[in-house]
Amino acid sequence: MIIILKESPDKKQLDNLINWLKSMGLEIHLSVGATRTILGLIGDTTSIDIDLLLALDIVDDVKRIQEPYKNANRKFHPDDLVIDINGTKIGGGNFLMIAGPCSIESAEQLNDIAFRVKKAGAGMLRGGAFKPRTSPYAFQGLREQGIELLIEAKKKTGLPVVTEIMDISQLHLFEEVDVIQVGARNMQNFELLKELGKVRQPILLKRGLSSTLNELLMSAEYIMAGGNENVILCERGIRTFETATRNTLDLSAVPMLKSMSHLPVIVDPSHATGLSRLVLPMALAAAACGADGLIIEVHNDPEHALCDGPQSLTPDAFETLTKRVGQILPYAYR
Amino acid sequence: MIIILKESPDKKQLDNLINWLKSMGLEIHLSVGATRTILGLIGDTTSIDIDLLLALDIVDDVKRIQEPYKNANRKFHPDDLVIDINGTKIGGGNFLMIAGPCSIESAEQLNDIAFRVKKAGAGMLRGGAFKPRTSPYAFQGLREQGIELLIEAKKKTGLPVVTEIMDISQLHLFEEVDVIQVGARNMQNFELLKELGKVRQPILLKRGLSSTLNELLMSAEYIMAGGNENVILCERGIRTFETATRNTLDLSAVPMLKSMSHLPVIVDPSHATGLSRLVLPMALAAAACGADGLIIEVHNDPEHALCDGPQSLTPDAFETLTKRVGQILPYAYR
Amino acid sequence: MIIILKESPDKKQLDNLINWLKSMGLEIHLSVGATRTILGLIGDTTSIDIDLLLALDIVDDVKRIQEPYKNANRKFHPDDLVIDINGTKIGGGNFLMIAGPCSIESAEQLNDIAFRVKKAGAGMLRGGAFKPRTSPYAFQGLREQGIELLIEAKKKTGLPVVTEIMDISQLHLFEEVDVIQVGARNMQNFELLKELGKVRQPILLKRGLSSTLNELLMSAEYIMAGGNENVILCERGIRTFETATRNTLDLSAVPMLKSMSHLPVIVDPSHATGLSRLVLPMALAAAACGADGLIIEVHNDPEHALCDGPQSLTPDAFETLTKRVGQILPYAYR
Amino acid sequence: MIIILKESPDKKQLDNLINWLKSMGLEIHLSVGATRTILGLIGDTTSIDIDLLLALDIVDDVKRIQEPYKNANRKFHPDDLVIDINGTKIGGGNFLMIAGPCSIESAEQLNDIAFRVKKAGAGMLRGGAFKPRTSPYAFQGLREQGIELLIEAKKKTGLPVVTEIMDISQLHLFEEVDVIQVGARNMQNFELLKELGKVRQPILLKRGLSSTLNELLMSAEYIMAGGNENVILCERGIRTFETATRNTLDLSAVPMLKSMSHLPVIVDPSHATGLSRLVLPMALAAAACGADGLIIEVHNDPEHALCDGPQSLTPDAFETLTKRVGQILPYAYR
Repeated sequence: MIIILKESPDKKQLDNLINWLKSMGLEIHLSVGATRTILGLIGDTTSIDIDLLLALDIVDDVKRIQEPYKNANRKFHPDDLVIDINGTKIGGGNFLMIAGPCSIESAEQLNDIAFRVKKAGAGMLRGGAFKPRTSPYAFQGLREQGIELLIEAKKKTGLPVVTEIMDISQLHLFEEVDVIQVGARNMQNFELLKELGKVRQPILLKRGLSSTLNELLMSAEYIMAGGNENVILCERGIRTFETATRNTLDLSAVPMLKSMSHLPVIVDPSHATGLSRLVLPMALAAAACGADGLIIEVHNDPEHALCDGPQSLTPDAFETLTKRVGQILPYAYR
Repeated sequence: MIIILKESPDKKQLDNLINWLKSMGLEIHLSVGATRTILGLIGDTTSIDIDLLLALDIVDDVKRIQEPYKNANRKFHPDDLVIDINGTKIGGGNFLMIAGPCSIESAEQLNDIAFRVKKAGAGMLRGGAFKPRTSPYAFQGLREQGIELLIEAKKKTGLPVVTEIMDISQLHLFEEVDVIQVGARNMQNFELLKELGKVRQPILLKRGLSSTLNELLMSAEYIMAGGNENVILCERGIRTFETATRNTLDLSAVPMLKSMSHLPVIVDPSHATGLSRLVLPMALAAAACGADGLIIEVHNDPEHALCDGPQSLTPDAFETLTKRVGQILPYAYR
Repeated sequence: MIIILKESPDKKQLDNLINWLKSMGLEIHLSVGATRTILGLIGDTTSIDIDLLLALDIVDDVKRIQEPYKNANRKFHPDDLVIDINGTKIGGGNFLMIAGPCSIESAEQLNDIAFRVKKAGAGMLRGGAFKPRTSPYAFQGLREQGIELLIEAKKKTGLPVVTEIMDISQLHLFEEVDVIQVGARNMQNFELLKELGKVRQPILLKRGLSSTLNELLMSAEYIMAGGNENVILCERGIRTFETATRNTLDLSAVPMLKSMSHLPVIVDPSHATGLSRLVLPMALAAAACGADGLIIEVHNDPEHALCDGPQSLTPDAFETLTKRVGQILPYAYR
Repeated sequence: MIIILKESPDKKQLDNLINWLKSMGLEIHLSVGATRTILGLIGDTTSIDIDLLLALDIVDDVKRIQEPYKNANRKFHPDDLVIDINGTKIGGGNFLMIAGPCSIESAEQLNDIAFRVKKAGAGMLRGGAFKPRTSPYAFQGLREQGIELLIEAKKKTGLPVVTEIMDISQLHLFEEVDVIQVGARNMQNFELLKELGKVRQPILLKRGLSSTLNELLMSAEYIMAGGNENVILCERGIRTFETATRNTLDLSAVPMLKSMSHLPVIVDPSHATGLSRLVLPMALAAAACGADGLIIEVHNDPEHALCDGPQSLTPDAFETLTKRVGQILPYAYR
């Protein structure tokens, strides 16, 4: 970390600052120039609060050199993390295809889709029980009953399951859920992240609509600092000025995150684009640039879907997708 | 609502759609053109799910004419809402100045600032007990103890108080808090919003970093649909490409929100700009364009602040600000 | 086009509007509802100015159904456009790899890179003679002399060449240039676009940093309306809040543009990411989602490059890239 | 400027770098830490190309301390610039109200508006002759004839005039135009900026839709480096995800730019918001936070306007605006 001081800093304040930094176990390099004085901090600056430093009268600017995350940092974990979900693996060359309906509507609907996506090659079943909806008047999911149906489908198909948690108070319902999803709107629900640091299941952490990659890793760090080291990162589109697609899928995030962190990175082309005809091309692109998996919305009957958006694929289209992604994978970036 | 159908829609699917819409109590206007068929829906379309319609094979596009919010809609509440907080009013011409430290650190710090901002003209005290921090290693607030100190300061100064809730499980601690704040990161924490629809205190709802005005009003609608009609909206800067300021303060949101809704609108120039020297000019601008109040960070001693950012004012600077805002108010837009 | 009128529109103004629209050859469908009156316009609305309609007292909103571009519209040109550049083809299944230095610095530098990228599989040589630089104090390119060196390299290697024009007054220098590039900052330099509508060479049109896909196609329409139908579209990253990469590469734009238009679409991963280590993965992703080509920065000696950014590849890394892209192409989306 | 080197930099490359920096007249402070080596550069680093440094193998990151602009820098010009336009002043406490139609349509229209805005208190007349339009099929302005009508209106009313240039080739027509406007889309048309550095008239430089304040000042620097020091900066809204307003008016830019530079700063609330009902509140806000002027669109008869958008005011509404802005100005920030 580098601290750039204002011109002619007050001597006493500078001494106070240097002593305080030393008391935190840091080594200080003082560089006095003609117009500027610069402090170089050597040591673990993870817990130094930049805002606190910027609040000091004598400080002009602060630049981090070291990343503020440790548990999620590739530098300290050079090898890819492989997460084993009851025998199903992701990361380190293991590609995981997750598929299922946006919302769980009935046992019939869910089981039908579950068997079809399994047959088409999915390794995990997704399905929404608690649904974050912009409008209080929109369908909010089957909630507790939805989780029950998902566990039933898991038993019937043998597929591990992932579903979204929206509040700490729901956690007791997730006992048999294999992977717990944190949605984009809750990426910085820090109280929830702390609780998820204490559970034994892996967490699927979706990037917030306007979150930087650094912030995504800091949210992973919240979970990991609590003791749960199995976090799967998910790029699902960011909010930009472009309106042709629902969000802008930031695929550069895939190789970038994988260079910053050892955690597996998956991509959600369904929510990112909001258009079913873009799911296949963006799934191929995600596989090509090194994603460790995909999460795809599949419906059985669009005419009766309660919340399936126009981004859902039919089971047949999903089968085509798994085949074509499989053809790309041997030539993908890693 | 207008539904634009694809060319040559399937007759049976069209009939199904029309019957379903009629079953929801809507009147349908069918307009068949040379290349396009258009359905105009007359009636209350608030609970119609646009995504559901877009998922239908025969639908090309859907356009809302009516706003999807009712309780928060100016059309149904032509007069400004005036919220009475134990005698302190906001809205309908009542301007409310809220001030206090970013974080509550000690009884001494809080009481000192509280008395000084009261003397300078503040009508409400703010102070953070639960602090949402990007890093798990940064100071997370005094939490329960912070709330206690805030209640003490309220009793000592007679100022009503506002502080942020971060999770439903904290709600029992807010019994004596006058206004409950929902932070930008929780603006779409829908489970929390639903709970806050049941409390008796007014809610200060901050706009999310990448939330549209429509989404902000939909989040207010979540609270209001639960029965709590006292929501104060807060513009606090949005995330854009510009890095000169921490966020981009969107002041057009003030007159825009006030035309869309009858709810009071306040502005937080401290967090929006992140720079203390921009707080005064942006406070004057916010007052000029019709804001119903301001929320300002004030510190007592920046050298020892635990989380006060570089955006905090000294009590003297805050006193200047209240005076100068007072001079602008008689000529402000309304 | 649908015009939504305000409640109780003035009868005389409505008649004037309808007559004016009819005088432009449009058929009008009038739909009078309980609270809203809607006009549906049937016919060619390309030249109707939405802003003009919105300025009318009686108009509340206007929605386009038809796209405002004709020459660039896939609907009227169902087959992919194939552009033949003196025997080198792009579009309709012909993939074109364009490579070369950011700036042309010397005959030696340019010729060396040109031969190396040709050997590695490039089908076209790029090189900047006129350089748009944020700072007036930065190197502005060799300008006229740079164009001469590029023509020389073209003659020596047999590779067709592309380079950027920055102003109409430079056009006479581009006589022997095979493809004329319009940079992101000039995408809406409409006077320049009009002039380029009159030249015989294909135009490589880069997307502006904050331009929508619709605006990109409207800029292509400027060129095509002038008679030059050979436009190559280029996605090169858009400006967002994310700072980990220089810009955010919007790869969804590739299949989206190809569904909107019959024009070839290429991708520039070098400028989009600004990081050499991201060029290969994003090139693979671009190929996978259906791009018709790539434009890649290649340097010979980074230690002496005058403007090569950190996004340039060595000739060896470029050779690896062409091979790996070649492996992906048979399985790419189309 | 601070250069952060990669771990264990090659000794010879480091020596080459240091020698090259010294040859540019810079003093070098070398600070060798346990894991990092840092170079601090003292002296004028304006002409150092950051991209060039980042391209070097041994460089990890580069941080600017000094701003890259000199002529436009407040540090070297502590006093506000006052620009005298044939007796009409702007800057240093002189507030300038500019008004007029979006497009010049006829002598009658222009003269009518010109006399009315003069009577209402405008100090300068605006009117578009060359119109940048997204669509090639939209009205492109009266062009040369428009300039002639503007000069006529100037002679009749005595008001100085400002109008937009779109290409260098139009420059000879601007002989009698008092202030030459560069539109948002041409803010980085560097060839045009260079030419405008040679003219004697002040330049009104509008901020690009996705340009940072730093980039705006660098574009001003292009003009000033050519010898024309009279540049007026204009905030006119930036492109964000919000769609309630056409663009997001970034009013923090006003005090921020005025702290960075001595140049006058004006605000265009008409184009920024795109909604006539937001023009008054945002004009008041702009005045309150310290703007040196406003540029406002005024129409005479919206029913016949060729390009006036829904953001234009009637002359009566403009008269109200000038009065209300006049009431705010004595209490505005400075």
